Amino acid sequence: VIDIIAFDADDTLWHNETLYVRSQERFRQLLATYHPEERVLQSLYETEMRNLPLYGYGIKGFALSMIETAIRLSDGRIQSTEIAEIVHLAKEMLGAPVDLLDHVAEVIPALSRLCRLMLITKGDLRDQEAKLARSGLASCFSAVEIVREKSTDIYRTLLNRHGIEPQRFLMVGNSLRSDVLPIVELGGHAVHIPYHITWVHEVVDVHEETVSGYVQLAHIGQLPAYVAGLCGNKVQKRA
Amino acid sequence: VIDIIAFDADDTLWHNETLYVRSQERFRQLLATYHPEERVLQSLYETEMRNLPLYGYGIKGFALSMIETAIRLSDGRIQSTEIAEIVHLAKEMLGAPVDLLDHVAEVIPALSRLCRLMLITKGDLRDQEAKLARSGLASCFSAVEIVREKSTDIYRTLLNRHGIEPQRFLMVGNSLRSDVLPIVELGGHAVHIPYHITWVHEVVDVHEETVSGYVQLAHIGQLPAYVAGLCGNKVQKRA
Repeated sequence: VIDIIAFDADDTLWHNETLYVRSQERFRQLLATYHPEERVLQSLYETEMRNLPLYGYGIKGFALSMIETAIRLSDGRIQSTEIAEIVHLAKEMLGAPVDLLDHVAEVIPALSRLCRLMLITKGDLRDQEAKLARSGLASCFSAVEIVREKSTDIYRTLLNRHGIEPQRFLMVGNSLRSDVLPIVELGGHAVHIPYHITWVHEVVDVHEETVSGYVQLAHIGQLPAYVAGLCGNKVQKRA
Repeated sequence: VIDIIAFDADDTLWHNETLYVRSQERFRQLLATYHPEERVLQSLYETEMRNLPLYGYGIKGFALSMIETAIRLSDGRIQSTEIAEIVHLAKEMLGAPVDLLDHVAEVIPALSRLCRLMLITKGDLRDQEAKLARSGLASCFSAVEIVREKSTDIYRTLLNRHGIEPQRFLMVGNSLRSDVLPIVELGGHAVHIPYHITWVHEVVDVHEETVSGYVQLAHIGQLPAYVAGLCGNKVQKRA
C-alpha cells in the first residue's frame, strides 16, 4: 500500500534546467569578447559550487555567481551595462512562465484523486511557491515541503514529521542523487524519470546493477500504470 | 492560557537591519563619485520595492537591487570592479555571525521550558535556517515556519495547520505590520518590541489609540514577566 506519492518539482513536473542552459548560453556569448568560450561555463560552475554554502540553490544565487564570474574572467574589463544584461537574464528566469512537462497536466490531477500527493523540492522558497501557484497544480498537493538539501537525514525527518512509513511512500523525480538514492536507502519506493539535461552537480556515478529498489520510467505518463502495478487496488483512497 | 509563543526572528531575536544599514552606507560611499548622495538610498529603496514581487525578501535580492541601482545611477559608468565590491558586501552579509539581541540568550531557553515556542519568519529559507542553526537557539523551538509574507491569511492558515486557537497564541516581534496587527485581527495576543531601526517597508501609520489588543515592551527581557501576568500559572507546561 502506498499512502503518499511525493514529487520533485524542477525538471520533474516543469522545465527548469532548460532555463539555466539558455541563460548560460547567453552568458557565454556575453563573455566571448573577453575570454575563450570553452572555459567560461566550467569557470561559472566552479564559482557556483564555491558559493553554494553561502547562496544555496536558486536563480538569485546563480545570477550573483554569473556576475562574479564575468568580472573575474574579464579581469574587470566587462562593462557595467553588460552586467545589467545578466541582472536582466535573472529577472527573465524568475518571471518565466511555468512550462509543464508532457503528461503532467493529466497525470497529477488523476493521481491526486487516488491518493495524497506531496511536493518535495529544494530551492528558493519564494520561487518554488510562485511556480507551484502558476503551474495550476497547487490544489493537487496536500503538502508542500521546500527543503535545504535532499539528503537521507532530511527525508527521514520529513517522513517522521508527517508520520509516513517509508514502505508506504513513493518518491518520483529526475535526480538519482536527490530523489531516488536517499529514498532507496530509507527503504521507500522511488521512481526515476530522467530529464534530458542533468545539472552536473546532480550527476552521480551509479553502476545501475548495484543499486536496486527503484524503477526508471521514460516519462511521467507511465507513472499511473506503475502505481497501479505497485499497489494493485491498494492505493489509499483520498479522504 | 497560552499554548504557544511564536517569535519573529530578524531584529526580534538577532540583529539584522543593522547589517543592511551598514551595507547601504558602503553602497552610498561607492556611488558618491557618480551620483549625489542624498538620492542614492531613495533610489535603491525604489528598486527594491519594484523587484520585491520577483525577488522576495533577503540578501541576494537586495544585492541584485544594489547592482541594478548602481548601474542606473552611474549611467553605466560604474566599474565592474566596483560591482564586485557589491557582490562582496552580499557575501559578508550572508556570512555574518548571528548577533543576538540583549536578553535573548536567557529569555528564549527559559520560556522554552514553560511552553512550546515557534519561530515565524519571512525571508530566504536557507538564510533563515542557517541563522537559526548558528544562533544556538534551534533546540528551543518546537516548530519553525518560514513564510512568504506575514499577512492575516497566511497566519490563519498556519495556525489552522498547527491546530492552534488564536486566543491561546502569542506572537512576539518588532514589526507592527508583520508581527502584531495581523495577529490582533485574528484575535490572538501580540507583543510589540520595537527595534531601534525599522525598514521603511515595515513602517505603518498607526494611531496607537485606535489599535488595542497588543502590548509594547521595551526589550525582550521584559517578556517573561508579561507572560507570567498574562497566564498566571496557566502557561501550558511543555510535554
